[in-house]
Amino acid sequence: MDVVTTTLPAITLNELHATAERLKNWGRWGPDDEIGTLNHVTAADVVAACRLVRKGKTMSLALNFDEKGPQGGKSNYPAIGRFNPIHVMLRSGTDAYAGVLDHRKIRGADDIIIMPTQCGTQWDGLGHIFYGDKMWNGRDCRTVTSFGAQQCGIEKTRQKIVGRGVLLDIPMMLGMDYLPDGFGVTGAVLDQAERHFGVKVGRGDFLLVRTGHLEAKLAGANWDGYSGGDAPGLAFDTLDWLHARQVAAIATDTWGVEVRPNQTTEAAQPWHWIAIPIIGLTVGEIFDMTELSRDCAEDKIYEFLFVAPALPITGAVGSPINPQAIK
Amino acid sequence: MDVVTTTLPAITLNELHATAERLKNWGRWGPDDEIGTLNHVTAADVVAACRLVRKGKTMSLALNFDEKGPQGGKSNYPAIGRFNPIHVMLRSGTDAYAGVLDHRKIRGADDIIIMPTQCGTQWDGLGHIFYGDKMWNGRDCRTVTSFGAQQCGIEKTRQKIVGRGVLLDIPMMLGMDYLPDGFGVTGAVLDQAERHFGVKVGRGDFLLVRTGHLEAKLAGANWDGYSGGDAPGLAFDTLDWLHARQVAAIATDTWGVEVRPNQTTEAAQPWHWIAIPIIGLTVGEIFDMTELSRDCAEDKIYEFLFVAPALPITGAVGSPINPQAIK
Amino acid sequence: MDVVTTTLPAITLNELHATAERLKNWGRWGPDDEIGTLNHVTAADVVAACRLVRKGKTMSLALNFDEKGPQGGKSNYPAIGRFNPIHVMLRSGTDAYAGVLDHRKIRGADDIIIMPTQCGTQWDGLGHIFYGDKMWNGRDCRTVTSFGAQQCGIEKTRQKIVGRGVLLDIPMMLGMDYLPDGFGVTGAVLDQAERHFGVKVGRGDFLLVRTGHLEAKLAGANWDGYSGGDAPGLAFDTLDWLHARQVAAIATDTWGVEVRPNQTTEAAQPWHWIAIPIIGLTVGEIFDMTELSRDCAEDKIYEFLFVAPALPITGAVGSPINPQAIK
Amino acid sequence: MDVVTTTLPAITLNELHATAERLKNWGRWGPDDEIGTLNHVTAADVVAACRLVRKGKTMSLALNFDEKGPQGGKSNYPAIGRFNPIHVMLRSGTDAYAGVLDHRKIRGADDIIIMPTQCGTQWDGLGHIFYGDKMWNGRDCRTVTSFGAQQCGIEKTRQKIVGRGVLLDIPMMLGMDYLPDGFGVTGAVLDQAERHFGVKVGRGDFLLVRTGHLEAKLAGANWDGYSGGDAPGLAFDTLDWLHARQVAAIATDTWGVEVRPNQTTEAAQPWHWIAIPIIGLTVGEIFDMTELSRDCAEDKIYEFLFVAPALPITGAVGSPINPQAIK
Repeated sequence: MDVVTTTLPAITLNELHATAERLKNWGRWGPDDEIGTLNHVTAADVVAACRLVRKGKTMSLALNFDEKGPQGGKSNYPAIGRFNPIHVMLRSGTDAYAGVLDHRKIRGADDIIIMPTQCGTQWDGLGHIFYGDKMWNGRDCRTVTSFGAQQCGIEKTRQKIVGRGVLLDIPMMLGMDYLPDGFGVTGAVLDQAERHFGVKVGRGDFLLVRTGHLEAKLAGANWDGYSGGDAPGLAFDTLDWLHARQVAAIATDTWGVEVRPNQTTEAAQPWHWIAIPIIGLTVGEIFDMTELSRDCAEDKIYEFLFVAPALPITGAVGSPINPQAIK
Repeated sequence: MDVVTTTLPAITLNELHATAERLKNWGRWGPDDEIGTLNHVTAADVVAACRLVRKGKTMSLALNFDEKGPQGGKSNYPAIGRFNPIHVMLRSGTDAYAGVLDHRKIRGADDIIIMPTQCGTQWDGLGHIFYGDKMWNGRDCRTVTSFGAQQCGIEKTRQKIVGRGVLLDIPMMLGMDYLPDGFGVTGAVLDQAERHFGVKVGRGDFLLVRTGHLEAKLAGANWDGYSGGDAPGLAFDTLDWLHARQVAAIATDTWGVEVRPNQTTEAAQPWHWIAIPIIGLTVGEIFDMTELSRDCAEDKIYEFLFVAPALPITGAVGSPINPQAIK
Repeated sequence: MDVVTTTLPAITLNELHATAERLKNWGRWGPDDEIGTLNHVTAADVVAACRLVRKGKTMSLALNFDEKGPQGGKSNYPAIGRFNPIHVMLRSGTDAYAGVLDHRKIRGADDIIIMPTQCGTQWDGLGHIFYGDKMWNGRDCRTVTSFGAQQCGIEKTRQKIVGRGVLLDIPMMLGMDYLPDGFGVTGAVLDQAERHFGVKVGRGDFLLVRTGHLEAKLAGANWDGYSGGDAPGLAFDTLDWLHARQVAAIATDTWGVEVRPNQTTEAAQPWHWIAIPIIGLTVGEIFDMTELSRDCAEDKIYEFLFVAPALPITGAVGSPINPQAIK
Repeated sequence: MDVVTTTLPAITLNELHATAERLKNWGRWGPDDEIGTLNHVTAADVVAACRLVRKGKTMSLALNFDEKGPQGGKSNYPAIGRFNPIHVMLRSGTDAYAGVLDHRKIRGADDIIIMPTQCGTQWDGLGHIFYGDKMWNGRDCRTVTSFGAQQCGIEKTRQKIVGRGVLLDIPMMLGMDYLPDGFGVTGAVLDQAERHFGVKVGRGDFLLVRTGHLEAKLAGANWDGYSGGDAPGLAFDTLDWLHARQVAAIATDTWGVEVRPNQTTEAAQPWHWIAIPIIGLTVGEIFDMTELSRDCAEDKIYEFLFVAPALPITGAVGSPINPQAIK
């Protein structure tokens, strides 16, 4: 195994803006487009992705949504109001047992969920991040009001998140349990991983990059430092890589995809500044790749059918999901 | 076209209990099972289902989740506390525009969803309905408390809702836009539909039965009478049919699957009494089959890959979903 | 009884702006003030108000907070997302009965409330309405973000809503059960009511104006047209009256205090434009004055101790309340 | 100052049950009563309480309701699902600034609160605690279902929480900043405090007992160990004292009134078992007595007008409140 350097260059706001100009996909799919790089997936890609299924094994990449989720941890970064799901009942089995439902002539339970769309395994929609006063496709950020995203809501992706999934399992490649905080997965690392695992990422693919970070927190039974905190993740230069490869979407097992501390102090989450509003990337976070990692290591196959539909919540800027990897 | 009778026999509580004895699947998959008929799906079924995808077309069967959803209609039946989704923002584009986020060095939006799990397109989990003091697999209904379903929570299905989907489009067969309230889709009607569409429902299939009811409400732009109200739907005798065919799950475009008014006044939703706690069926409701119906009528193919993962909300008795039919 | 005319003059935006200049209280209580006219109440006023209590009778002016509240009615005006309170349990007596709490060695119930602060009986706080880009005391409206009101939050009133209450019962004066929609209660009507009831409104008073509108809806068991709808209410000229009298706060039994249809189509709720951000008035709505009206008619005493503390929800722009009139 | 012993006797379940028999108020105010000891307050008491107001000073005893509340602390005791208030906006000043509200011709903000009724300063209603299968007045605990408390809901107290307040400031008496965890305030300590402060607690009074515990947590800016944790508080023997004195209600500055660790391991919160369902006491918790303590120390007057109306949330078993002490 070659040593992989993780020393990352600092980036400036000027470089950030230059990157935005270089990678801007605005207008690429017409002025009315609201789903960005999900347009990269063709019908033929979907057919081909389904052909990848050979053993009939489905794996969920979701954490359960409950009070033990990642929002319970402490963070040194300022909170933005996310909390773990709150699940309450409208009717229960204890009501049934107590006989108080019997006037309805049926005994049943019902429930309510209260949750930030981005509290657990989730997609960032294209209304999630703004670039100055603009959002994806050059739209005005003021279309995302207290009444929700009037444009680029997550519901627009309702039947577009099906295709070929590819796993690049970085700690597996490096013989590590997990990557340390601050470890930057650069384009070069992704290239190396492709060679290592014998898989190629291309147009319309859903790329999953594993860092092991989530599993490390699960192993410690402690989410402190996870949400909003330092983490391994994608380096800023992967924006060019992802743009060139024309991926449909990307997801990792960290809370925020990109490496932390960030490569600049002039912007927070600089990769997000470009990925979502400029490139039009739908971005997945807090994916649990534990089982998928093991399975791929076992059968040496790092591609699969990937189906991860967002809940079509009108005007939402993200969605909790239960992504399915099917091999 | 043969005339299809919709005169349904009245059923008694005795017949209901006899049906329970006849169709009881408790113990069929061991004493610890929590997912019931989803066990009917094998790995080979998943592979075969993926092979059905020929044109690479994905169709969502979900209504958008928003304040225009079906819970806004009036009903003559007593309410059980369901309401349309409430979507609110934690940060917005207007905050961004106003400059109040800039101290964070990133401009973004976040949001929260508050919703009953069964307010829109959804799965009924196996903790949703009780039979006396029992739930699926003979478990004690008291395990579904105010803290949620300690057993048979929807999260147990997390990677089991993938397989072959089959659409039986009853109004299409009958040359109707939609079936009227009280129209009972019997086992005989399902048999007829199989012959009509040249498709056979078998072990491990996800059966979708269209009544046109949801589309009729959408066409009228008025949900009055939908949720909790009268509807066309499955007759009581389909329980034997579904049990015999060993379907994995079933879904319709109505709020409650079964025909209303019910075939008895001694029990409300008698089909539910058996389907969920006795047979162990996962049941889908409020599926929007508009696009699927048109597509199947066009290509005459009534089978497809079906992927409809529940959100794994720990202890939930249902889940909002975005079902994907892929052809 | 003199006939009271209710023909109201139309007002223009120019007049509205002139009124703003004329009545502007900005700076009156210093540049840091966040509670406006509540400053009119002195310690001596509180002592005097307590001396008004002679028979020891307490009356609540709140509607119960529940699913039968006024937000369930239909409106011809666009909705702004308010809904009736949603009350759910965290533990229940049925849990207790079922024995599932006994491992805690205590049997108890707990609950959650989900509600818009202005869904029922409530105060409008000073962050509720803006005048252009300004709010009370000339502050920037951008201080009311998705994170709440950083300034002028309702919590600032935490110990200031105690004083002398005065009821002016307009339909009682006019021998009507309730005032019709569009009936404008002008300054002249308020003057007449003072004379009629032998009570004088002065500095630091909490003025309650009854229209009978809420009781009419309760009598009809139907809230249609209430929230956001047409109503009797205060005419625009009462702004001068209230400013001159130096009231601490004002409340009515309608959803929005002012007469509807409004006296202009150039602004919606023009009275609010001035009352809250310009005068600094805390405004009460949806007060149930049924019992108070009867009691005052009986003992002919229209003044009382008034205690109506807001819940000090940090950054809230309103608060549900249970106002107490004590005689 | 005499040394006050805090060694507390252990109590057994038998003693607990004997206490229940001895202090049971069931039927005392008729079989239909739903408010218990609040009945002790007479109209004359209200008049007399108002006469106590001499300087016109109002003090709020509420913590602000926000994300910094006491539910954020860690506890060694099992959680019961309480969380800090979640406050979100329906419209904001940034929306206003961005111009997206102008089609409505009014610029305003609205908000929603999501909170457990007992997450902060609050009343425990009579539906909060059960004794076996019974609740206050011998009612069946099954009347508190997932749909709320069908009986003894907090809304029944809507105009009954007005009267004479008395502060017994135990650490002030003892020359301590705050009482340590496990310090039991016994009936003897209460007697001593009455003598020390020259005030007598009697029928219909609202008794406030300060321990300093809340202020100690505020001083440390850390709620760890507060909610659900160990604390100073009322000893079990105060049940007889409170019953004999016929207080209307009692409140402290701790999360759960009674001393922790409890005086028994056979029951959790044994004082609650008796106080609420047996005596019918409305119980206040998490009262912030900081300002009141200082004021009483200064003017040596430990009685005042107390007005602390619950929000009349139908079927609630508790209520967030903003108690007002007026001197």
